[in-house]
Parts: sequence; structure tokens; C-alpha cells
Amino acid sequence: MKILIIHGPNLNTLGVREPGVYGIDTLGQINERCMGLAKELDVELEIHQSNHEGEIIDLIQSAAKTVKGIVINPGAYTHYSYAIRDAIAAVKLPSVEVHLSNIHSREEFRHTSVIAPVASGQICGFGGDSYILGIRALTELIRNA
Amino acid sequence: MKILIIHGPNLNTLGVREPGVYGIDTLGQINERCMGLAKELDVELEIHQSNHEGEIIDLIQSAAKTVKGIVINPGAYTHYSYAIRDAIAAVKLPSVEVHLSNIHSREEFRHTSVIAPVASGQICGFGGDSYILGIRALTELIRNA
Amino acid sequence: MKILIIHGPNLNTLGVREPGVYGIDTLGQINERCMGLAKELDVELEIHQSNHEGEIIDLIQSAAKTVKGIVINPGAYTHYSYAIRDAIAAVKLPSVEVHLSNIHSREEFRHTSVIAPVASGQICGFGGDSYILGIRALTELIRNA
Amino acid sequence: MKILIIHGPNLNTLGVREPGVYGIDTLGQINERCMGLAKELDVELEIHQSNHEGEIIDLIQSAAKTVKGIVINPGAYTHYSYAIRDAIAAVKLPSVEVHLSNIHSREEFRHTSVIAPVASGQICGFGGDSYILGIRALTELIRNA
Amino acid sequence: MKILIIHGPNLNTLGVREPGVYGIDTLGQINERCMGLAKELDVELEIHQSNHEGEIIDLIQSAAKTVKGIVINPGAYTHYSYAIRDAIAAVKLPSVEVHLSNIHSREEFRHTSVIAPVASGQICGFGGDSYILGIRALTELIRNA
Amino acid sequence: MKILIIHGPNLNTLGVREPGVYGIDTLGQINERCMGLAKELDVELEIHQSNHEGEIIDLIQSAAKTVKGIVINPGAYTHYSYAIRDAIAAVKLPSVEVHLSNIHSREEFRHTSVIAPVASGQICGFGGDSYILGIRALTELIRNA
Amino acid sequence: MKILIIHGPNLNTLGVREPGVYGIDTLGQINERCMGLAKELDVELEIHQSNHEGEIIDLIQSAAKTVKGIVINPGAYTHYSYAIRDAIAAVKLPSVEVHLSNIHSREEFRHTSVIAPVASGQICGFGGDSYILGIRALTELIRNA
Amino acid sequence: MKILIIHGPNLNTLGVREPGVYGIDTLGQINERCMGLAKELDVELEIHQSNHEGEIIDLIQSAAKTVKGIVINPGAYTHYSYAIRDAIAAVKLPSVEVHLSNIHSREEFRHTSVIAPVASGQICGFGGDSYILGIRALTELIRNA
Amino acid sequence: MKILIIHGPNLNTLGVREPGVYGIDTLGQINERCMGLAKELDVELEIHQSNHEGEIIDLIQSAAKTVKGIVINPGAYTHYSYAIRDAIAAVKLPSVEVHLSNIHSREEFRHTSVIAPVASGQICGFGGDSYILGIRALTELIRNA
Amino acid sequence: MKILIIHGPNLNTLGVREPGVYGIDTLGQINERCMGLAKELDVELEIHQSNHEGEIIDLIQSAAKTVKGIVINPGAYTHYSYAIRDAIAAVKLPSVEVHLSNIHSREEFRHTSVIAPVASGQICGFGGDSYILGIRALTELIRNA
Amino acid sequence: MKILIIHGPNLNTLGVREPGVYGIDTLGQINERCMGLAKELDVELEIHQSNHEGEIIDLIQSAAKTVKGIVINPGAYTHYSYAIRDAIAAVKLPSVEVHLSNIHSREEFRHTSVIAPVASGQICGFGGDSYILGIRALTELIRNA
Amino acid sequence: MKILIIHGPNLNTLGVREPGVYGIDTLGQINERCMGLAKELDVELEIHQSNHEGEIIDLIQSAAKTVKGIVINPGAYTHYSYAIRDAIAAVKLPSVEVHLSNIHSREEFRHTSVIAPVASGQICGFGGDSYILGIRALTELIRNA
Repeated sequence: MKILIIHGPNLNTLGVREPGVYGIDTLGQINERCMGLAKELDVELEIHQSNHEGEIIDLIQSAAKTVKGIVINPGAYTHYSYAIRDAIAAVKLPSVEVHLSNIHSREEFRHTSVIAPVASGQICGFGGDSYILGIRALTELIRNA
Repeated sequence: MKILIIHGPNLNTLGVREPGVYGIDTLGQINERCMGLAKELDVELEIHQSNHEGEIIDLIQSAAKTVKGIVINPGAYTHYSYAIRDAIAAVKLPSVEVHLSNIHSREEFRHTSVIAPVASGQICGFGGDSYILGIRALTELIRNA
Repeated sequence: MKILIIHGPNLNTLGVREPGVYGIDTLGQINERCMGLAKELDVELEIHQSNHEGEIIDLIQSAAKTVKGIVINPGAYTHYSYAIRDAIAAVKLPSVEVHLSNIHSREEFRHTSVIAPVASGQICGFGGDSYILGIRALTELIRNA
Repeated sequence: MKILIIHGPNLNTLGVREPGVYGIDTLGQINERCMGLAKELDVELEIHQSNHEGEIIDLIQSAAKTVKGIVINPGAYTHYSYAIRDAIAAVKLPSVEVHLSNIHSREEFRHTSVIAPVASGQICGFGGDSYILGIRALTELIRNA
Repeated sequence: MKILIIHGPNLNTLGVREPGVYGIDTLGQINERCMGLAKELDVELEIHQSNHEGEIIDLIQSAAKTVKGIVINPGAYTHYSYAIRDAIAAVKLPSVEVHLSNIHSREEFRHTSVIAPVASGQICGFGGDSYILGIRALTELIRNA
Repeated sequence: MKILIIHGPNLNTLGVREPGVYGIDTLGQINERCMGLAKELDVELEIHQSNHEGEIIDLIQSAAKTVKGIVINPGAYTHYSYAIRDAIAAVKLPSVEVHLSNIHSREEFRHTSVIAPVASGQICGFGGDSYILGIRALTELIRNA
Repeated sequence: MKILIIHGPNLNTLGVREPGVYGIDTLGQINERCMGLAKELDVELEIHQSNHEGEIIDLIQSAAKTVKGIVINPGAYTHYSYAIRDAIAAVKLPSVEVHLSNIHSREEFRHTSVIAPVASGQICGFGGDSYILGIRALTELIRNA
Repeated sequence: MKILIIHGPNLNTLGVREPGVYGIDTLGQINERCMGLAKELDVELEIHQSNHEGEIIDLIQSAAKTVKGIVINPGAYTHYSYAIRDAIAAVKLPSVEVHLSNIHSREEFRHTSVIAPVASGQICGFGGDSYILGIRALTELIRNA
Repeated sequence: MKILIIHGPNLNTLGVREPGVYGIDTLGQINERCMGLAKELDVELEIHQSNHEGEIIDLIQSAAKTVKGIVINPGAYTHYSYAIRDAIAAVKLPSVEVHLSNIHSREEFRHTSVIAPVASGQICGFGGDSYILGIRALTELIRNA
Repeated sequence: MKILIIHGPNLNTLGVREPGVYGIDTLGQINERCMGLAKELDVELEIHQSNHEGEIIDLIQSAAKTVKGIVINPGAYTHYSYAIRDAIAAVKLPSVEVHLSNIHSREEFRHTSVIAPVASGQICGFGGDSYILGIRALTELIRNA
Repeated sequence: MKILIIHGPNLNTLGVREPGVYGIDTLGQINERCMGLAKELDVELEIHQSNHEGEIIDLIQSAAKTVKGIVINPGAYTHYSYAIRDAIAAVKLPSVEVHLSNIHSREEFRHTSVIAPVASGQICGFGGDSYILGIRALTELIRNA
Repeated sequence: MKILIIHGPNLNTLGVREPGVYGIDTLGQINERCMGLAKELDVELEIHQSNHEGEIIDLIQSAAKTVKGIVINPGAYTHYSYAIRDAIAAVKLPSVEVHLSNIHSREEFRHTSVIAPVASGQICGFGGDSYILGIRALTELIRNA
């Protein structure tokens, strides 16, 4: 069983970028923790980071044939990328939207996710743990489907 | 380490009420799964359900002295109870807002949570698993604090 | 055949409270008229008044097993109690929302009912007669179901 | 005592038009039921259907001299015809706005009635029975005036 | 030089309809005053009243060949008849929108005129005198064109 | 196979009315082009123009028995006639909404069509060709149904 | 009988300022025309121009004792000066709001007048003639009061 | 002369809860200061705190017979409890709404009070002194009535 | 200790202007009552009234050196004068916004104060007593600072 | 004469993605139909699909030198890509916006096209035929230019 | 070549007022820097500060005859003074709106400038340098005109 | 000292694209002028143009290590690219947003910049000079930091 993990725009600068908001973990460290859990859950991970909206859509489409579900942190695209939303809706895979920070306690524009209505569920506010919880949640969804 | 779990209005009818939306698990079954995990994580649970906004505030206030964090599913109060929000903000404990259904794919009024801005994080869309993930998340928050 | 009648907040002060808006009938007098009609229609009534949102939810839930339908005047809760809305939606009984005054010709905030979308129908503007019409309407709904 | 009953636009196609929403009764059948009740209540009915906004205004104006009250289902004009509203306000007769369907559980634009603020009351959601209840309510209003 | 005067919906009931708002003059009396002024200004009048939106459009279109300008009181159509607006814009004649009452001190929906943007000017609040001023204004516009 | 073509308000003045916006073709010339295409496609046309909202509804209702589809340019009624919308929804025929001008590049109020949600599709911005394309589209819809 | 005429901000530059919008008459020429009409109507005028909101309020207050009515062109203050509105409401004199241009066919912000609700009536779109009509209207209001 | 003082939700945790916002006084200390002033003004106080909306309504209703006025700090209910608003409007007693903090300089949702329109006046921003000023204001209102 | 008292636009006409709304006290009488209290509290007052927004700003700026706090009734400037708001924010003195009437029960536009967010607190609805309470409140703020 | 055809994001998955909404034709099949028509109309086609907003802009810019017009289905970019809008406006070529589904009968956010105001026209709701009609419409626009 | 520089309300307190937001330079120091640059660019400056909206309009009008362009920091009037906007639009001189702070990163109400649409350009966020850049920009605009 | 200059989407077509709005300078000519100034100010420039949102983010991230500040014209991305906003916020370098045209006097959607709140300042409306002023402003910001 393979899961696609997508890190959206600016997540490659984690640990450097506004650590007060996003924590001090780098993306590499988060990925390592994810892979640790994946092993434990007997799941394979395919991990990508991209700043490009179109690339994220390409990734979702091409993964559709090989993975059983998606954990995605769409970064700022969360708030306006109806194109990523359509891509997720089209692949018809269970998907979990995750965010490091609690988007509901930040700027007004971050309170709305255009992607959430087509995701299976949403998890936010737990730093790197949001991914960990997302992988757990997704694995359950896939296994119970 | 004790955690307060609050089930808000109408959650006592789970399993009966609109199973298409909320799943077929009863509240008792969810509570049992929570207690199973709590044991595993070496955490004690204090679990309450109430249809009364004021009672939920009373519960949060009185628990403030004995618990280390809160998992709350505020039900429909999610969308307008600034009084519960104030109660959570006041106790200054880590807290996780959970929902059985994906509130972002339902009616417009369910997309906004007045409580989320003062919670540590939010988890929705995973049925009874939202609680399981919420307890895991909260335990991490408390242990890392 | 039993019907639940719920009088929401402040309706216990009827006849005293703003008679220019709500008429001079007391709640007792309205209840008597309702019981008169009930007899005529061969229907049993269970009548409650409460100022407490949670209590109204409790009433709806517990009545779900014994009544065949609900006539409810949610008073000011009409305009924001998504929790009462959820309770009514959950019991899956025919229900009629009634109002003494014509809520559409009063303050802006009274024009919207968050409960109406889950009720079977709505009747407003006929003083105590709104209840009389509501019982008639509900009885028809139940008998034709 | 004569009452004017106005069926607004598209109500002449009842029974054919979207029976899932409006029921299978034809307008003729509803009119017959109304006349049955009228006889019982010792009331005379004058019944018209029109798809023309201006015609409905003409009807209201000319009836003003001969009827004691109006039951009107303004159909889609409910949501924007300030001209019909003005006509009703001008005749200063008791009037009841009725709708077959529960307009509050349908499309957003159907939730607002520009006519309701000048009507005596509103009844919706009971199919053909909305007219029956409307005639009862109006008769009471006229007799108690 | 001929001028078209159009009285919109419900203006035929003037003097009867809400005299507190619209004054006690009947439409006949206003028309007489208009004709008196027309004589004085050496202008011919063509006067119509209609409750029908389509008829008002027909009138504007057919008058386009014989009149030099329009004074129109669109009544409630003021607030939503984009069709009358288009008719006025199409004839490319000077036109004056008049209202008996001060529409800006009444209900919110009366504050906006969808017709005013294509009229030459607007006069409101002077009872029957609004027409008198409108004829004067229009005559000047035509003579100075 | 017969198709109903409805030209809404003010379209009878085409060629005269604001040629900068709507082109110099008269309605007669457009109708001739439509009939030419109809012949080519082996389709019969029934063509009407009306400035009256109610008349347009009457036309739709009575045509329902004899035509297989509707091409309608609702003119300004596009933006507020929920009554025409209901009529189209009720006949349950394929229907194409057409506009001469690109309504999206004009005034704000022209950007929204209350009729489009119940039409099969919408074509705008091609002058008289919008009708030509509309007839082609509708014929395909009917033949593929 | 004395009338106060107030020219608001930037009206002193008339004839120079955007003649395409406001016409080529200077304020002096408009004042002369007003005085000509005043003589004809046997009315005395007190005319002021000011760019200062506070000064306009002072003028209204001090004139309250000596004039019988006010013609005011509040210029851009029309759209936000609740202080001038309060001054006009307080003097309880008949007052006419006038505008040279048709404010309803210009920028969105010019469509709303915060002063109109407390004026007796409003006249706009007739260039210098708006004042002439305003003086006529006001004189009638005073004489009929 | 007796005055009812109502402390709304979460005010029982004063001094502990966010002292940066609400000050370090406990509710007990504020009550003592109120009683000191009451003695000075020769007024009797009846003081209640409740987290329950329904209970606050009950309190207002039952006090209506014995007190001459109300000082209420509705806490978070300020922003949505139309039910408490109706209760206050119904008792027809002078009432003063007080807040410890300046609600206008906090979150957007705290800027609006649904209760203020039916209160006699509002005082906010002075910590415990808001109550002191409220008792003074109410006493004057009662004595001058 | 000196306090600046500013009466904003139109307050010089108090007692004359709409006594139903603002009471029958003149500004002179209110000032006398203020001075009586000032004596009692051992405070010096500097009192100004102005209809000019700029003058009010000048007053606030120049007083900044000699007074310890400000009581201001900004009149209609309350609702739009960001310039006065900036002046108050800049002087960094405790300040109390007062209103004679309950601005929350009047027209919609009076519900919002652009000045309140930078004031220490707000008092409204007590007629001339609003000033009395404001001076008391300010004196406490200054003495406790 | 060459025409550029652009298929926006997610259109490469046509036939697979939500066939209930978009039909069962694959993009290849639609392209073939387009090429068939192109041959008939003696037009050359340049066809591209891209999920990348920037790439679509690049395509439009580089085609500007070699094509005579554009048919574009911007997919979800329709609703927010002001950058694609600017690219189309800049090339100053006739352009037709097409959509497979009727965007006006789907989610609210799909009702608005930020691109339509700079396109020549818009066609939606006819499945693959929307392209066929678009090519016809564009060819006419180019030939009549 | 002379340039008018206008400092709006509260800018006379610069250096004292909120130095965290506006910097520690006094207005005198900024003026000196401006004059230094003016010398360098061979431009004459006329510099004014005023807290009075009307005075700023007077300044713009009277300067219109002697200066070639305007640099204006309208302070808080930026956000609502349509009267200053009209004055700037009327003089038809190149004009540059400047702000010390980045108005887009402050309170919501500061994000909108009603003056910017009629200015040539806008510069904000560079403290005293905003004026320096503004003078450079304006000089270029005048010399290239 | 090196500065990054980013030209956003469609700026590569400058001089060709809508010269009435953006001027006749090509991007090459603007770049040359920038390099001339850079030499004068002893600053090195790194200049990029891209139509790709993701590429612009990549550029900002990779430049973060080598440049001291950013001048960016985000083109149409200005109005919705929260992803570019996040990238700028993350690098924590002084940055200046520039626009050739005065975005405040164009279409409504261009009045809002989602990027401005995280930039140091904004300059618009001076054609190619906006860049020149931007480089000057940025150089000052860097040197004074």
C-alpha cells in the first residue's frame, strides 16, 4: 500500500521560515518522522514538495494509478487553488488535508480552504504531528474502505 | 495525566441520528475505543456529554483544576457559542476540537468554527477516529509542552 | 397519537410581554385552545415551555420515542440555535415551526430561521391561532404519511 | 363574505411540474378542496391564476371593493415583486401568503419573501393544505377584526 | 412638442393608497395639474398608467417616434425592472424619473433605482409637485438640447 | 421536430437600439438567418418576441406540448425573472440561453443570470450568431437525448 | 420669506472643474439665475459656498432663526457627512438636496446620500437647473406647510 | 429599591482568566465594591452569576416582580443571545449593559451587542468600575423615571 | 489635575434639537452639572464645543500638554472621523467616549464608532448623565494609572 | 488561418474524471471531433493541454504571432486566474471561453469567470460540443472582423 | 517650477506620535530633507500642514494657479474624504499620494484610499523617504508631461 | 550589494500590450534604465521575468541567500497569490512592490494586493519610473537597516 505525501509551496524552507509560526523542524526531519511511522504501519510513502500549482496537479494525476490515498499540505494554495481541488476530486482517492499551524487562529484569508470540501478530512495545528496524524487517519480510511 | 473529553449537543443520539452523515457507531462504542487508546497511552479520561451550553462551560471550568487538556466536539455549538470559546480560552489548557463529519463539505454555516481560533488544533472528517486522533494529538501536545 | 408542543424562551410571559406585538392571550389560554382542538382531532398533546436551549433539545430527544410529530415555537432561538435544528433533524419526525407574530415584518434578524430548513413547514403571524393551524397541519402530515 | 384566492405564475401546471417538489395534486383539485372548506366555513371564494405580474396587481386592486381578505401564493414573484407587495399594502385587507413547498429548505433565493412583510401571516410547506390552512387563518382574521 | 408621462404600478389608486405616504391627491388631480402646466409651457402631454411592466415597455417603445421626452414614475418597478431601464436607454430620449415620496427616507429597498442611471435626472419627495418639476425639467432639457 | 425561439424584452428594437452594443442586424434579419439554418438542419421554428414577462411564461407553457426544445434570449429578465426560470424548469425540455452581447463584460448586474442554472447551456457574445450557435447546440442536445 | 442656499465643497470652481460632468456655468452665473427666479417668486435668498464641513454646519444652525427653508448641494459631503445630516435634521426646516450631475450614473460611491433621508426631497441631473427646480420645490413646500 | 445584577458566562473565573484583558479583581471583590456603593446610594442588590443562557432568562423574568432595574454583563452572550434580549425587552425595566473590557478594541465579533438596542444604555472599558458606573447610572434612571 | 471635555458637532443646539432623542437639557446646563461634579472630585475642566472636525483635532493636540485625560462626545464624527481617532490615539491620554442617546438603538450607521477602539471606554444612553459618568470614570482611570 | 485551442487543468483526465458531470468523451476524442470540423471549415488547429497556469500564459503569448484566434477552456483557472485574463487581453485576438459543463448550475464559485470579461464570448454546458460551437463561433468572428 | 506639498491631519505631531509606526523624524526634519532634494532638482516647494479637511481643499484650489503638481499625504482623510478627492480631480495637476507607513499592513480601514483613484500614483511605507520619492516621481511626471 | 528584480506575468510583452495603460517602453528598455541607476547607486542587479507563479517563488527562495532585497512587480499575481506572499514573508528581506499603472484607478479587483501587507512598501502609477523609485527606496531601506 502506497501513500502520496505532497508538501505545497514554501514548505521546503521549513525550520527557517517563521519558526514562531511553523516550528523549528525542517522538512527533512518531518519526512523522516513520517517514514518512521510508515514503516510501523506497513505503508510505503511517495513524498514530493513543489512550489508549482501545476506540478502539484501533475503529481496528483500521475500518482492516481499507484497510490491508495493522499496526504496533502497545500500551503497557501489551500485558499484559492480550485485547480488542485479539481485534481483531488477527480482522482477519487481518500485524501487528508494537513496544516502545521492552526489556520483558524491566523489571518482571515487562511480560515477558508477551497480544498477541504473535497478532502476526506482535515487536520491542523499540531506542527509536524499534523502529518503523523494525517498518515494514521488516511491509513485507517484506506483499510476501512 | 487526565484528559477531559466533551461530547456536545445531540451526540448522545449517535448511531441513530443520520448515520449517513455521522456513521453507525454509538457514543458508547466511541467512548470505549477512546478508553482503549487511553490505556495504551497511559492517560486517564473524564468523559461527558451534554446538550446544554452552560453545562459545557461549567464542565470546562471545573475540570480546569484536574485535567491537563481537553478534547471537545462542540456539535452545533461550534458555529455560534462564543461563551464556550471564552471558557476554553480562559482555562489555558491545550485543547483539540474534533468533528465526526467533514464540516467543510456540508452546509455553509458549518464551515465556520468560532471555537477553533482558541483551540490548539482541529481534526474533522474521520468519524469516531477523529476522537482517537484527537487524543493522540492532545497527548503529544501535553507531553511536549 | 401524541404530539409534542414546545414553547420556547420567554413564551411563559405571554399576555404580559409586549401585548402590542404578541397579543393579550396568556400561554395558559393558548394551551387550552390547543387542547380543545386536540380533543376534536382525537390527538393527545404533550406541552412544555422552557427558556433553556439544552432543555428543549432534551425534550425533543426524549419525546422522539413517544410522539408522532412536533409543533415548536422556538422563540428567539429560531434565529441562531443550530443545536435545536440538529435535534429536530435527528428525530426525523414531521415538525411544524410556528410563530405568534409575523417575523418577516419585524427586525431584520427575525427574518431568518435556522430551524425552518429542517421543519416540514412554517406558520407565522396569526397569534395563538398559529398553534391551532400548526396542530391541524401536523395532524394532516402524520395521517397522510 | 368573499375571499380572493390568487395563484401566481406556473401554478397552472401543478401536478405536472416537478411533482417531487410540489406534489401530484392539480390546481383544479386544490381549488375543489378550497371550495369544499369555503362551503363549510360559509365563505365565498373568487379564484384566479395568472402568470402576469401586472394582472395580479389588477386583480388585487379590483377585488379590493368586493372581498374581505386575500390568500395569495405569489409563486416566484414572492422573491422580487415589490409591485405586488405595494398592491397588497395598498388595499389594506387581511392577507395570507401561502406556499406549497417549504421555501426555507430550497434554493437560497427562495428564502426571502418581499411580500411577507406586508401580509398578515405566512404558511408554507404543506402542499395543497397550505391553502386550506390559509383560508382558515384568513377567515379567523376577518371574523376577529 | 409632445411629452410622454408614465405612471407605473399602483399609482391608479393614489389618494386612496396610504395617503400618509403619498398624499391625498388622486391621479386625476395630478394629471390635471400637469396639463395646466403643459398648456403654460406650450407642451402636449400623452399620459398613461399601467400596472404591467411589459405594457410600460411597449409604451416607451411606441412613443419613441412621436414624443421628445419622458417623465416616468416607475413605482415599485424602480427597484428591479432592468427591462424598463433597457427600454428607456434604447429610445435615447431625455427622461426624468419622478417619485411622489422621498424614496431615500423609506425602506432600504426603495433607496436604489435601477432606472436612474439611464435617466437624465431624478426628482423625488414633493408629492404631485414631483411631476410638475419633472415636466419643467424635461422641457428645459429638450429645448436646450 | 419543432423548436421554440423566444426573444425577450426590447429585442424588437434591435438594429436601432444601441448598435454599438448589440450590432446593426434587425430582429427580422436574425430570424431569417435562423430559419435558413433550421431548413438546413431539418428543424421547424416557432418564433416569438415579447416585452411581457407573463407572456413569455405563457409561451413556454403552451409550447411545452409541441416543441422539443427552447432557445431563449430573456433580455433584461435574465437577471431577475425567477418566474421565467420556474417556467423553464417546469417544462423539462432542453433549453439554451443566448445573448447577443457578452454579458460578462458589461454592467455588474448583467453578470448574473437567474435562468442559466436551469438551462442546458448558455451562449453569449456573438451577436446574431449566438442564436445560430444556440439552434445548433439545441438540435444536438435533442438528437443525442 | 428667506431661503438659505448652500453650495458645498469644490462648487466654487464650477465652469472650470470637469465641464464635461458639471457643465460650463460658473457658480456666479448659477447664483444670478437663482436670484432671478427668487425675484419672480418673491423670495429672498441667502447664498453661501464653503469647502468646510464645520462651516456648513455653522451656516445651517445660524440660518435656522432667519430662513424658512434650505436648498443644499452638499457636494462630496453628500456621501459621508453624517454631521451635516444631523444639522439639517435638527433645524427642522423643509430642505431640498440638489446635485448638478445625475449622481446615480456616476461612480458607485456617489449613488448613496447620507443626507437625503432627512431632506424633504432630492433633485439631481439638471445642471444649474437643479437649483432652479429646488427653489421652486422648496417655495411650494414652505407655502403649503 | 432593589436592583438585579447579573454576571454572565465565565465571569466567575475573573481574576484568574486573562488578567491582561479583564484585570486582577475577582468577582467577589467586584461584588463587594458594588455592595459598598449600594449602601451609599441606599439601594439593595440581588446578585447572580450564571453560565447558562436559560438561567439568565429565568432570573430576569422572576426578578421582574421585585426589582426596579437591571445591571447586566452578558459576557459572550452579548453577541448572539436574542433570547436574553427578548427577556430584557419583555420586563420593561430600566437596564444597563456593562463590560469590563472595551469590547470595541477587541475581536470583530465583540463589537456588536444584540442586547444593547433594548438596554437603556451601555458602559464598557473600565474594569470593575463599569459595574460601579452602571449602578450609579441605573439608580439615576430609576429615580428620574 | 485638568480634564478636557469636547462636545462635537450639533451639540451646541442641545435642548432645542430633537428633545425626544437627546433630552431637554441645554449644553450650558450639562456643563454646569459637569463643573459641579468636577469641584466635588477636585478636578479642573476645560470645555469646548465645535462643529469643525479639524478644530477638534487641534484642541486634542494642544490640550495634550496640559490635561491628564479627555471626555469626548464626537457627535456624528463618531461614525467616520478616522482623523479624530488618530488624534486621540496620538496623545496617549486616557479618554472616554460618551453619547447622550443609546447609539445602539438608533439608525444602523450609529452602531459603529471608529473612535471607540482607541478610547479607554465608552458610555452611552444616559442623557447628560453620560458626561457625569464619563468624568467619574476618567478620574478613576487617571488616579489609578 | 490557424486557431489555438487550450485545454486547461485536469482536462487531460476527461472521460475518467467525474463522467456524471463532464461526460464520457476523452480529450483525444474531443480533439478529433475538433479537427474534423476544422477541416470542414478550412481552419488549422494548434491544440495544447496544460495543468500549469504559467504555461498557459506562455502558450497564449507565443501563439499570438501565428494564430488568428483562441478557443480556451480554462478549467478551474476560470475562477481566479487574473494572469491568464491579462494574457488574453494583451494578445488582442478574438477568443472564445468554453466549458463542458453548465458552470452556472454547479457550485457558487463556478458561477464567476474572471476571464469572460476579456473574451469575445462564452459557451458552456454542451459537453464536447462546447468546443465545436466555439470553433464555429471563433471562425465567424475572425472572418467577419 | 513650484510643487505643493500637503501634510494632512496629525502629521504636525510626527516624531512624537507613535514613533513605532511613523518613525522618529519630526515634520520639520522631513521638510528640510524635501527642501534639500528640491534644491538639487531645481524645484521650488510650497509646504503646508493642516488638520482641517476644508483648509486642505482651499489649499489645493488656490495652489492650482501657481504650482505644477502636488505631493499629498492626506493622513486619515485618505480613507473617506471624497471632498479632497474631488478637489484633486478638479485641478487636473499631476499628483502623488504618499504615506509614511505601509497602509496595507495596518488596520483594515487603512487599506482603501478614496483619493488614490484620482492621483497619478501612490507611494507608501518608506517613512520620510516616501516624500523624497514622491517629489522625484512628481518632478519626472511634470517634466515628461 | 545585490538586489533581485522580479517581473511577473505578462510583463515580457510590455510596449506591445495595451500601451495606453502600461506605456510604450519595452521590458528591455526598463531593465536598461534600472541598470543605469544601479551603477549610479553602486548596486548589483539580478533580473528575472516569469509567467509562472511557482517559478517566482523558486526565485525568491534561491535569491534569499545572495541578495539584500527585492523589487517585485507581481503583475496579476498581486491580487491572489498568497503563495508568493508567503515566499516574500519567509525570506525576511526588505522588499518593494511596484506597479507600472495606478492599480487604484483601474478595475475593482486590482485595488487589492495580497502581497502588499508583507512588503516594506508599495509604489505604483509611474510607468517604468516605478522601478527606478523602487530601487532607490530599497537601497535606502537596506543601507539604513
